[in-house]
Amino acid sequence: MRDVFHEQLDAVFGDLATICGQVETAVCQATKSLLEADVEIAEQVISADVDIDRARVEVEEQCFELLSLQQPVAGDLRVVVAALRMVTELERMGDLSVHVAKIARMRVPDVAVPAEIQPTVSRMAEVARDMVARVEQIIVHRDVSAAIELGRDDEIMDQLRRASFTQVLGDDWTHGVEAAVDIALLGRYYERIADHAVSIANRVVFVVTGEDPRAAASEA
Amino acid sequence: MRDVFHEQLDAVFGDLATICGQVETAVCQATKSLLEADVEIAEQVISADVDIDRARVEVEEQCFELLSLQQPVAGDLRVVVAALRMVTELERMGDLSVHVAKIARMRVPDVAVPAEIQPTVSRMAEVARDMVARVEQIIVHRDVSAAIELGRDDEIMDQLRRASFTQVLGDDWTHGVEAAVDIALLGRYYERIADHAVSIANRVVFVVTGEDPRAAASEA
Repeated sequence: MRDVFHEQLDAVFGDLATICGQVETAVCQATKSLLEADVEIAEQVISADVDIDRARVEVEEQCFELLSLQQPVAGDLRVVVAALRMVTELERMGDLSVHVAKIARMRVPDVAVPAEIQPTVSRMAEVARDMVARVEQIIVHRDVSAAIELGRDDEIMDQLRRASFTQVLGDDWTHGVEAAVDIALLGRYYERIADHAVSIANRVVFVVTGEDPRAAASEA
Repeated sequence: MRDVFHEQLDAVFGDLATICGQVETAVCQATKSLLEADVEIAEQVISADVDIDRARVEVEEQCFELLSLQQPVAGDLRVVVAALRMVTELERMGDLSVHVAKIARMRVPDVAVPAEIQPTVSRMAEVARDMVARVEQIIVHRDVSAAIELGRDDEIMDQLRRASFTQVLGDDWTHGVEAAVDIALLGRYYERIADHAVSIANRVVFVVTGEDPRAAASEA
């Protein structure tokens, strides 16, 4: 039977996983609004972001209570601070989904993403959504090997982003500057969602092992 | 005479101000490399970022030591966590400066920013740099009124960003897709630097007053 500190910590990580699920929905719906030029879904993503913000505040309060009442030191202290950072990143991923939804809303009734580049953008969106879904499981199961694997998949997003630049900067790009700018910013938003997913996965590795895989990587 | 906790906290805020100075240099030099297509300065900004990363780690260690040894509660605890968040944001601002320098480097020997839009981009860069410089002073002097004023100036960056979009999307834009995409991403990077500056200023307000101006704003 676990002590009070670790029981409360489990509750915090449970809430982090729940917020991660909300973020996955946000990414998924924002992409749907983008590719279908659906203003109602875009509005839903934008208005639902306050729920993620509220959930973040609640997790922060739990963490402050843990720090104040349980006075953890050493590894336990760093785990609570890691949780505080994870919830900040999850909120940021929600904000980035809102940015995607706002580009969708701005171009309605047109679809912001021209048909010929939709496969690339859809793939970026799917990679981002899949990473968020996997992070949720990584948090639930404290799955270190899945977390390390997620870090490797970051390269796929980089490749897709380069592919999108090649397309919009190519001679056969006929959709003008506005669509190209939208694609560049959308790519940036999905890339940042993926970056945060990797960062959260790395924090889970740290929480479980006490080792930061980024530190190990930078030493390599 | 201050107690050990507040003396160590002063040291942390001194280091935060120093890092803020390094970030101001990064923003300033990245912009210089961008507008002068100077690859050497761009390389300097990119390689100097490790110093900001190292300084961040040192501040984090100081904060963990403060939390472990001094076991602060209530307001003092939140101040240390605020410092941890401030240093994370400062590191991020350094990363964003590196992104600016990399766009500069990618276009050398050309200047990434066409002459006709340089006034707008220079202004964005100057607003960002000025906000970083002011944040340094806000940290040093715990200047709440200057911090609240900084929050208001965020709107200037939004206006400049809209102006840059109007230019690149206008019929008389003759510089093609690549330059437009660069401008859109550069605008995003400078905007994010400004966002982080405002966020850090808000954290200083919280550190001094115990009130988060964003919370107050969202209630209004």
